[in-house]
Amino acid sequence: MTGAKDRGVEHSQIDSAADAYARAGVDLNAADRAKLRMRDAIRATHGPQVLGLPGGFGGLFALGALDVRDPVLVSSIDGVGTKLKLAFALNRHESIGADLVAHCVNDILVCGARPLFFLDYLALGAMDPEQAVRVVEGVAAGCRAAGCALIGGETAAMPGFYAPGEYDLAGCIVGVVARDRLITGERIAAGDMVIGFPSAGLHTNGYSLARRVFAGADLAALVPELGRTLGDELLRPHLSYLHAVQPLLDSDLVTGMAHITGGGLRDNIPRVVPAPLAVTLDASTWEVLPIFRLLRQRGNVSWEEMQRVFNLGLGFVVCCRPAHVARVLALAGPFGARQVGTVHERGANEPRVRIEGLA
Amino acid sequence: MTGAKDRGVEHSQIDSAADAYARAGVDLNAADRAKLRMRDAIRATHGPQVLGLPGGFGGLFALGALDVRDPVLVSSIDGVGTKLKLAFALNRHESIGADLVAHCVNDILVCGARPLFFLDYLALGAMDPEQAVRVVEGVAAGCRAAGCALIGGETAAMPGFYAPGEYDLAGCIVGVVARDRLITGERIAAGDMVIGFPSAGLHTNGYSLARRVFAGADLAALVPELGRTLGDELLRPHLSYLHAVQPLLDSDLVTGMAHITGGGLRDNIPRVVPAPLAVTLDASTWEVLPIFRLLRQRGNVSWEEMQRVFNLGLGFVVCCRPAHVARVLALAGPFGARQVGTVHERGANEPRVRIEGLA
Repeated sequence: MTGAKDRGVEHSQIDSAADAYARAGVDLNAADRAKLRMRDAIRATHGPQVLGLPGGFGGLFALGALDVRDPVLVSSIDGVGTKLKLAFALNRHESIGADLVAHCVNDILVCGARPLFFLDYLALGAMDPEQAVRVVEGVAAGCRAAGCALIGGETAAMPGFYAPGEYDLAGCIVGVVARDRLITGERIAAGDMVIGFPSAGLHTNGYSLARRVFAGADLAALVPELGRTLGDELLRPHLSYLHAVQPLLDSDLVTGMAHITGGGLRDNIPRVVPAPLAVTLDASTWEVLPIFRLLRQRGNVSWEEMQRVFNLGLGFVVCCRPAHVARVLALAGPFGARQVGTVHERGANEPRVRIEGLA
Repeated sequence: MTGAKDRGVEHSQIDSAADAYARAGVDLNAADRAKLRMRDAIRATHGPQVLGLPGGFGGLFALGALDVRDPVLVSSIDGVGTKLKLAFALNRHESIGADLVAHCVNDILVCGARPLFFLDYLALGAMDPEQAVRVVEGVAAGCRAAGCALIGGETAAMPGFYAPGEYDLAGCIVGVVARDRLITGERIAAGDMVIGFPSAGLHTNGYSLARRVFAGADLAALVPELGRTLGDELLRPHLSYLHAVQPLLDSDLVTGMAHITGGGLRDNIPRVVPAPLAVTLDASTWEVLPIFRLLRQRGNVSWEEMQRVFNLGLGFVVCCRPAHVARVLALAGPFGARQVGTVHERGANEPRVRIEGLA
C-alpha cells in the first residue's frame, strides 16, 4: 500500500505496517485505519494452523495436525470475471471477494475436498486503500464462512492496466481430501439420481451476456419480477455449497458432483459424468429464477444458449445411488436440495445433458 | 478457450478439448494446435504426485509420498507487474511466465521451502490462443526448472478490462518445509555475514520507474553499455535461486534470507532481519549491473531512491554465521555468491540497512 513500490505489496506487509503504526501510537489517518481493518479481517480467518511470519514472503500453514489419511491437496485458481464491472458501476466492493472464495470452495468441493487456505491477488489501476480494504474484507468474510485461512495476498498497483477505480481480483484455494475419499465422477452409474442445489442468481457466470442484455438499464430501479433492483440482483452472492454437501460426503453418499459455472448445466455436468452416460434434467423440479426468465425475454436469448451460459437456478449438482436419495434429501433438503434428474445410458447421437420442461 | 464462455476456462479443460480433437483425428487448425501445445507443456511438469482428473475442477497433488516431518505448507501469490508492458511492446510472451514462477519460487525459498505445485491466472482482453499458449508455455518452463508441477490455471477472457493483445498474469505457488527447518530470520544474530547472489537485471521490480526513464527510447537499439538491446535487457529473466540455495539449507548453514523484490535492498532485508540489528552492505563487493547505472544517469535518480526501487544487482541474500562463510561460499560460489556485508547491532537512529560504496 506504499506509493514507493510499483510491484505491489503482500497483505502481510500491510499488516506489519499497521502494527508499527499501532505500536507507535501515532494518529491514524484514513489510509492507516484502512490498513488496520485489513489486518483485522485477515487475522480473523487464522486458526492455530497458520504460523506467524514477520517478513511475509510466504504464508505458512502447518499440516501436522491434519487428521487425513494419505492426503491429496486439491487446488483451484479463479477470478470473478466481468461481474466486477457491476461492482464498479454500483461502487459496491464488499461482496465480490466472497463471490471469489465461494467459487473456489465449490470447485474443490467437487473433488470432495475441504478448504484449508486461500490467497488473493488484487490488481488495481491506482492504489486506493479504502477500496482495497473493502475488497479484501469480502475475501476474508468468504474465507471465514468456509473455515478457510486467508494466508497470503498481493495488492498490486498497475497503472496503465486498469482504469481509475477499477481492478481485477483472482484467488487460489488449497484444500485437502483423503485419497480414498476423492470424488472423480468415475463412480457415477446409470440409474443414479441427480440432486440439485439452488443458486442465488448468476453467481459469477454469464455477465458479459447479461451486461449486453441490460446495457443502458437503470441498475437502481426496482424490478417487480425480481422483487429488488437490477443492481442488487446482479450482485447477489455466489453461494458456497460446502456446508450443504459436507454431510453427504461424510456419509459417503456421493458418486459425483459438478459446480455449475461458465458453460452452464450443459457443459459442466459432462465434466464429471462418464461419457457413455447421459443426464436428463426436469426443469419443472426446480425454480428457474426470475432473473433468467428476464434475461431470456429482454435479450431474446434461446433456451439453447441459456443452458450453455447460465446455471438457470442450479448452482451445484450431486449424483447418488437411487437407494440413497431419501438420506441425501434428509441431509441436504434444509439447504434446498431436491431431485432434479437422472443418469442413464447414452444413446447414439444423444446429447450428454438434456434439460426437459424449460418454458 | 471457447468463445461461448465469458468466465474463462481452466487449462485442464483446454487439455480435455485437445484430447478430444486428437482422438477424433480431425484436422487441427492453429487454435487447436495451440491447445495441444498447452497440454504438452503442462503435462511435462507433472510427476507421479499429480493425479489426473478428467473434469478439471481442481488440481490434485498427492502428499502421501512426501518424506517431510511435521510439514508446513508455504505459499505465495504474485503477479509480474508492469514488466508486462515490455512484453506487449516487444510482442515477446515466452519468458514472462518463467519470471512469475521464479518470483514465487524465491518468495517461498526465503522460508526454506521447496516448491510442490503452481497455478496460474491469465486474464486477457481478447482470447488469442497463440498468445495464451506462449504465456503458459513460459509458466510451464519455469515450473519444470523448479521441479514444480503446474496443476491448475485459468484463462479468462475479460473484454473491457484489457486492451486487445494485453493481459495480466498472476500465479500461486505451494511448497513445503519441515517445521523444524523453517527459516524465519529469527536466528540472525550480530556478527552474521551477508552473502549475496547476483541478479540478472531488474527481475520484476521497478518497471514503472524504468518505463518512465526510458519513455520513447528505441527498445530495439543496441546499447553499448549493456552489450544488448534495451528491450533484451529489460526482458532479462527473473532468476530463481532454488538450486543455488538448496544445498545451503540441506547443510543447515542459513540463519535468514531475503528475496530482493519491490522495495529493493533497503526495504526487503528488514523484512527478515530482527529490528535490533542492522545490515551494512559494501557495494564494491558485487557488480551493480550496467542497467542500474544507466537508469540512474538517464533518469537522474538518486542512489537513495535506487536502493528502495531496484535490486542493484543482488537478487537474493542469505545470512550465515561467520564460521560458516567458507562452506557457504564453497557451495554457492559456483552460482556467483559472494560475501557482501555484515549484520551488527543497530545504533540509535541508525537505518536498518546501509549500503556503502555506491558511486
